[in-house]
Amino acid sequence: MPMSIDSRPETRGRLAIIAGGGMLPHHVAEAARARGDNPYIIALKNESGRDWSGFDHATLGIGNFKSITAALLAKGIDRVVLSGGVRRRPEWRDIRPTLRTLAKVPAVLKTLISGGDDAVLKMAIGLIEASGARVIGVQDIIPELLAETGPLGKISPDREDWKNIEVAASAAVSLGRLDVGQGAVAVGGRVVALEGPEGTDAMLARVAALRAEGRISSHRRGVLVKLCKPQQDLRADLPSIGASTVLGARAAGLAGIAVEAGRALVLERSALISEADNAGLFVAGIDRAFLSGI
Amino acid sequence: MPMSIDSRPETRGRLAIIAGGGMLPHHVAEAARARGDNPYIIALKNESGRDWSGFDHATLGIGNFKSITAALLAKGIDRVVLSGGVRRRPEWRDIRPTLRTLAKVPAVLKTLISGGDDAVLKMAIGLIEASGARVIGVQDIIPELLAETGPLGKISPDREDWKNIEVAASAAVSLGRLDVGQGAVAVGGRVVALEGPEGTDAMLARVAALRAEGRISSHRRGVLVKLCKPQQDLRADLPSIGASTVLGARAAGLAGIAVEAGRALVLERSALISEADNAGLFVAGIDRAFLSGI
Repeated sequence: MPMSIDSRPETRGRLAIIAGGGMLPHHVAEAARARGDNPYIIALKNESGRDWSGFDHATLGIGNFKSITAALLAKGIDRVVLSGGVRRRPEWRDIRPTLRTLAKVPAVLKTLISGGDDAVLKMAIGLIEASGARVIGVQDIIPELLAETGPLGKISPDREDWKNIEVAASAAVSLGRLDVGQGAVAVGGRVVALEGPEGTDAMLARVAALRAEGRISSHRRGVLVKLCKPQQDLRADLPSIGASTVLGARAAGLAGIAVEAGRALVLERSALISEADNAGLFVAGIDRAFLSGI
Repeated sequence: MPMSIDSRPETRGRLAIIAGGGMLPHHVAEAARARGDNPYIIALKNESGRDWSGFDHATLGIGNFKSITAALLAKGIDRVVLSGGVRRRPEWRDIRPTLRTLAKVPAVLKTLISGGDDAVLKMAIGLIEASGARVIGVQDIIPELLAETGPLGKISPDREDWKNIEVAASAAVSLGRLDVGQGAVAVGGRVVALEGPEGTDAMLARVAALRAEGRISSHRRGVLVKLCKPQQDLRADLPSIGASTVLGARAAGLAGIAVEAGRALVLERSALISEADNAGLFVAGIDRAFLSGI
């Protein structure tokens, strides 16, 4: 019988959430509980700053495959969600392989050290699935987090914004192919920032600084675009935006934010929309059809 | 008779140097004088911080085509060198067209606002050449500034460095095609930063910060690669490195710097080499043949 991607408790095993930084893992955990799941939380050491005392949980190092695998087996986990950011990569001395993964250690180390985020996530998914659990996406637990097509708030992109969306989206696609990052900012039809490991908030702060120094025209607003990398596994690391992204975009003098409909997570949706409406920014889901024309 | 790109004074007119920021314009002016030229300096307002009192000079706004063109004609200029960085773009209200360029104003404004650096430079070259002067490259005045093939100091890239050079060079080529910037940093085979309008020094500071936060492996060094944009005019804005680039690369924990031989300027060569040797960094010119394999 094919397994459903549905996570309702009638499926035979338990759900685990591997929790990195940010607020997403807690949203996922609450949503899973609301659906009748009793999620087991594996909070990643030095990444997840949350208090998980309301949930059955363990705090483990990201390289500690041995304990993570043991936990998955001991708790009868059959589905795993990876959620939240991972800012630090494990050092090689922190890698604790299982017997099963021991032979893979050289490849694992190579990927951890030299792979892009996407390569690291693919590897993590492979290691988890080797333990028998299935990795599912956040969107399989909380589909309502996905961005839909069109404006989320009151404001829509205008003609100049669409031009910037096109330019930034095209740059984001190139950036994604290089497995560097997911975000790009275009102002006045010109790419002014590409996101690396520093993340979206730091990139937006850079744009704000460039603008304060007069290196970006004060007469043009511009847009932030965040897109999936073309080759990425959609079960991990979907681009996400939250109220803080809107605040960062406002501070950078941007006109708005565009993400791909169906392939980006909108966190704190109501706070995000009210911040955007207050600031006069658009937040829009754009169609795959638009992107494939780029 | 075809005009030579040689700048010796037997050519009929005078040399002008349009001077942006940094130390390059002064080097060029001194070198031109040493060769027997009497260069006329057009120091760009808010960009050139140098004292030009030792040279015949004027300080003019970058958008003031009218006065720049008048100066080129009044001083009998037949060759113009563009040198030094331009951090701020002119605001539209600063544009003072000549009668000849008046019809081009809408296109000029569009390029200034939405073009990449490369588009802006091409436009500036076109406007200058419309006045009858010829734009030549810094390398036509001081060919010895060009990077040659191979290591400049005592240290050569090792096998891991070559891998990083390849990865960063490939990213820099993509970045150049987007007309965003010239530089990229790869650590452990992974691109960790792409240069935008913030410039190389700020990008290296970002890499240093990522490393301090543990977001880049402390076990791998990495390289900075700076390359021409594939479509750029070689008479303007060749990638350049100086002693400060070496200091920035050292602070970012990098193993070295690679530029394209024959298409990059090495400023303060002896200071740069001694800083690099002291810090244990390589600085290398890489061959076009290596790059065309990317």
